[in-house]
This record gives sequence, C-alpha cells and structure tokens, in this order.
Amino acid sequence: MGVAASALHHLPLIAQSPARKIGYCIIGLGRIADHHMRGIAESSTARVTGLVSGHRDKAERIAAQYGVSTSSIYSYENIERIRENKDIDAVIVCLPNSMHAEYTIRSAKSGKHVLCEKPMAISVAECEQMISACKLANVKLMIAYRLHYEPITLKTIKLIRDGAIGKVEAIDSANGFNIAPNEWRSTRALGGGGPLMDVGIYSLNATRYLTGEDPIAFTAVATTPDQDSRFQGVEENLAWTMKFPSGAVASCITTYGASMPGYYKVFGSKGWLEVDEFGYQGLHLTANYRSDRNTPPTRIDEKNPEPDPKQFARQIDHFSRCILENRTPDTPGEEGLKDMQHIQSIYKAAGLTLG
Amino acid sequence: MGVAASALHHLPLIAQSPARKIGYCIIGLGRIADHHMRGIAESSTARVTGLVSGHRDKAERIAAQYGVSTSSIYSYENIERIRENKDIDAVIVCLPNSMHAEYTIRSAKSGKHVLCEKPMAISVAECEQMISACKLANVKLMIAYRLHYEPITLKTIKLIRDGAIGKVEAIDSANGFNIAPNEWRSTRALGGGGPLMDVGIYSLNATRYLTGEDPIAFTAVATTPDQDSRFQGVEENLAWTMKFPSGAVASCITTYGASMPGYYKVFGSKGWLEVDEFGYQGLHLTANYRSDRNTPPTRIDEKNPEPDPKQFARQIDHFSRCILENRTPDTPGEEGLKDMQHIQSIYKAAGLTLG
Repeated sequence: MGVAASALHHLPLIAQSPARKIGYCIIGLGRIADHHMRGIAESSTARVTGLVSGHRDKAERIAAQYGVSTSSIYSYENIERIRENKDIDAVIVCLPNSMHAEYTIRSAKSGKHVLCEKPMAISVAECEQMISACKLANVKLMIAYRLHYEPITLKTIKLIRDGAIGKVEAIDSANGFNIAPNEWRSTRALGGGGPLMDVGIYSLNATRYLTGEDPIAFTAVATTPDQDSRFQGVEENLAWTMKFPSGAVASCITTYGASMPGYYKVFGSKGWLEVDEFGYQGLHLTANYRSDRNTPPTRIDEKNPEPDPKQFARQIDHFSRCILENRTPDTPGEEGLKDMQHIQSIYKAAGLTLG
Repeated sequence: MGVAASALHHLPLIAQSPARKIGYCIIGLGRIADHHMRGIAESSTARVTGLVSGHRDKAERIAAQYGVSTSSIYSYENIERIRENKDIDAVIVCLPNSMHAEYTIRSAKSGKHVLCEKPMAISVAECEQMISACKLANVKLMIAYRLHYEPITLKTIKLIRDGAIGKVEAIDSANGFNIAPNEWRSTRALGGGGPLMDVGIYSLNATRYLTGEDPIAFTAVATTPDQDSRFQGVEENLAWTMKFPSGAVASCITTYGASMPGYYKVFGSKGWLEVDEFGYQGLHLTANYRSDRNTPPTRIDEKNPEPDPKQFARQIDHFSRCILENRTPDTPGEEGLKDMQHIQSIYKAAGLTLG
C-alpha cells in the first residue's frame, strides 16, 4: 500500500486545497528533464521537490530555479535516501535508456511512484522487471508517452474510433533526424539501439493507438551506410512493415542520418487523415473523408496552438491525478513493455538483436 | 531496319516541315487512351492515325473526333493489317496489363514502334519477350512512365544528383486508392496483380529514379481484409521495404481499399524534399535543405501549373523524337523489365506470386 494509500489519504485534502501538489524528484538533468520541469511549473498538480544528478553545481542551479531545497539534491549513489523525503511522492526518470530499469527499480524500492521516459528500457526483460518491482512496491509506473495526453492526438484517435475515415487499411509513418556526434543516444551501450528505440518508437506507438491493435507480423531492413563515429553498434536507417489483426498494414521508416520531420498518415475506406509532427508542439491534423461517394467530403485542418511545455504539463497532470485518485495511468508500464516487444520483433526481422 | 530506317529517312523532311507528325495507332480505347489522345492533340510531333477497338461504334466516334479515317479502324483480330498503313508509325498499347505483351509483340511484328502503358506486362518473361520482339523487328519500345518527362520530377532528380539534400538515406512513398467494383485492374486475370502492379509501381519507380539505383533487398507484407468481390486473387493492401546499394532504405505502401493520395519523401544528410501527387497534374515539390548546420536553409515550394494532358504531350513528344532521331527512349523496355523484376521480388517477399 505505502505511498499509494498515503496519496489516497490526501485526496479529500487536495480536493479542498488545490495548492497541495504531487512532489516530483527529477532523476537526470539533461534536455528532456528540462521539458518535464518546465511542464511541472505550468501544471496545477505538480511541483519539483527533488533532483538527482552527478553534477552538484548544475543541480544547485536548477534547485534554485525551481525552489527545491538543497537538502533534496541527491547523487546516483545515495538515491535511496529519497525514501525519507516526504515531499517526494514520485520520480521522473530522465536518464539514458540503459539506466531506466535500474533507476525505476531503485525508486520503486524507495517507495516512490515512477514516471519513466520512453523507450521504457533496453530489453523486454528489463521492462518486465520494472513492472514487477513497481507492483511489488505498490507504486504506480507510467511511461512518458506524452502524445497520449495531447489534444490533436486524442482527437485523431476519436475520429478513427468513431469511424470517420472508415476501416483503417494502411498507415504510413516516419520519424528521424540527423544526429550530432557524441550523443549517448547513438551508442549501443546507452541507447540500447538506434533511431528505432529513440524516435522510430513514436511511429510504432502511433500505429498502435491509431488502430487500437498490436501488430502481429513484422518485416524490416536496417543499414548503416555512414561508417562514422556517430553509430556505435546501432543502425543508422531502418524501414519496417507491420501487419495488424484487422488486416491493416503499416510502413514505417526512421533514421539518425537524415533530416526526417515526423508524421503519420492513416488511410481508411472512407478517407484519410494525417498528423505532422511528433514533437513538443505544433501537431497539425489534416483530414479528408466522406461517408459515401455521394456525400461531400469533410475536411479538417487543425493545429494545436499550445506551445511547449504544455504537453509535459498535461502529461504530469495525468500522472498526478492517477496518484491522487489511485488510478492506473493511460500509459502504464505494460504499454512500454508492448512497444519493447515489438521493437524486439522489428530488430529481429532486420537481423539485429535487442538488449 | 524497316520502320526505324524509314523514320530516319523522313528526318530531313521533318526538319524542314514540322507539319509532318508521327502517326500513332491507339490500341484499346479506355480511360488511359483518352489521356494519350488528348496529349497527342496538344503535341507538336504526333497525331492519331489509327484505332484498335472491339467496339466499332466507339471507335468511329473517336475517329471522327481525332480526324482518323474510318479505314484506319482495326479490330483485335485484324490488327496485323496496320502493317500496310503508312500513316501509322507507332502504336500505343492502352489495354489491360495482361494484354500488353501480346499486342506489343503483334505490333512489333507488324513493323510499328510501340509505346506501352505501365506496368509493362504481368511477368518478367513477358517483358523479356517484348524486348526481344521489338529488337528483332527493329522497332523502338518505350514504357509510358510519364513522370520521367514531367518538369517537377526532373527538377527533383536534378536536385538530388546535384547533392542539394546530401546523401540520400531514406525514402518514404505511398500511392493507392479505393477501387470501385467491376474494375479489370483488381482481377488477377487482367491486372496480373493488385495495387502494386497498378499504382504502387509509381512508388517503386520513384525510388529508382530518385536514387539512380536498383534495390537489392526486399521485405513485404500483403493483406486482403475486405473479402468482397473487388479483390479477385489480388492483394488489397501491401507495405514493403527496399534496400539500395548505397545503403539507402525505402518504405512504401499501396492499397486498393483506401483513399491514399500519392507522394514520396526523400530524406538526405543535408535536408529533405517531397513531391505530392503521382497524378496527371499538380505535382508539388517542397524541399528544405542546407549545405551545413551554419547555413540558412534553402526552401522550395513549387507546383507544376501545367494541366492534364500536358504530361502525355511531353511523353509523346519524347517518343516521337526518339523515332525521328533514331534514339533510345529514356524509359525503354528495359526500364519496365526492371520494375517487373522488383515487383516479382516484392510479391515473393510477401508470400505472393507474380504471373
């Protein structure tokens, strides 16, 4: 029970006093942590109450910025001391992929709820261990699939579920970028894989929330034509296909070697829709569909005007409410595990291995 | 030598008198024939001088429209009589795919040059027979890959060859549509395959003219979720990947079951470019690239304003000039054969068979 019960205990108090916010300890203070902290600053349910970093100076600077007590700054060695910090309800794991499992499990064992960045970990086994550890500790585990909380994405999913574009037959998606040298993400040791793990996962996850199905067959091809120091044991380019139980098919592509702004397009028996951008803002939905050949088409052209870090604020509000109301997050550990199982299948189809 | 020599013989005359045009006999009077004939009417080098149809009434109506003598109307049975018609220099094969080989070969044996619609035929063997027959008869064979003569496509290819977007790493393309009932194209007997043969071939061919390479590895998945009468032994949806010698990868998708406006996107080390539309008009190029990280990006947003049937006029002008100047077309039979070989590989990867 532990923290979950304790959070429930606070529920009436919260309802009366919205000023009481869930306290989050940020583990790892890189770029993504910055987005989370700015999102927390904009949220109505969260506050930053702890920091874990290997760089004390940096941590103190950020602590001052977010009003965190210097006594709530931890190192990777003494992270278990967050257990005694009553201001910390949960952690956000913002570390390189290869460290997600360890710090999720150590945080859970320290009695804290966990919001973990995607990809959940670097192997299926790690994901399973994370889920088990959080269950055992009776803490919540959510994976930071921020688009599940983003209005254009939710509208797109609803359009499809409502049958607007008819039966989904095909999905096409791409997401990639030209990675700079010396990024942990393009090393096998820290990234656990290449662009599929890092950004291709958006396409994979999108096909799943768009169809409401899990893929059942995979084909893939991977190449690393640029034999430069950026690609240490990871693929540079990867194209793959998936088949879904309904008979829908998907073609996806990702890269670390080229400019590739993200998008997905969904092709249905009654029309199509498209969302440009998997990024932190500016998701843009266009659609064109009609109920039958004699009906004039419905057209949609709609952009989410909310600037970054609103996605992170929405995401953290969801997790805070799940903690406060003892609900399972919409993107629990099981959601991250499924993507990891599919990533494993895609890598296998490409002749690569995961983990 | 026959017709080629005869055409060469006319060359000085043509140069003096542009009014002398290459005479084309249209074989099959369906929708695509209409585009060809309208293109011929707009061209400066071609005229319609013969028609082959199973419907005499329809042929006479069209003959009147294009100023074709009724004595130059043929049936499928007596098509060999075009040999004696000196006004017919060449034919355009506008028949269902399964008839391309027979009528290309019969026309070649009748001493006429051949412009054949895509896909070239329904098997690799047929393509090889067509090439042999045209070589033996010393007539030219061109496959109607009209986009090879379309300005936006040519500009796109030049941009890539000039290195504007750097090294091509990945290509994504889609092309499909929701087919109506009772179309010959969705029957195995006449179409020879499904949407890959009919419209997916545009994506396949695009990856080849964009990279200047032939793919060397293929993966694919095909489904036919809608068990309705439209799909007689052909796939409904097909997603596939390709790998190129340079290490570039491609992901493509096609369908007969959904609205899927065509496009391709090319992702390079210095930027990307995209062309929307494989259709008869309105090809739209957008691009964003820069020579290095410190240079401001170059942006392109350019649409081909030429309305249909200008693509067909450009295409027929190319073939006429090849005949007049005894040159090999930019899209000879060998180009169609290569696509057919790749289609065979894609179908094989999907567990399907061609031919």
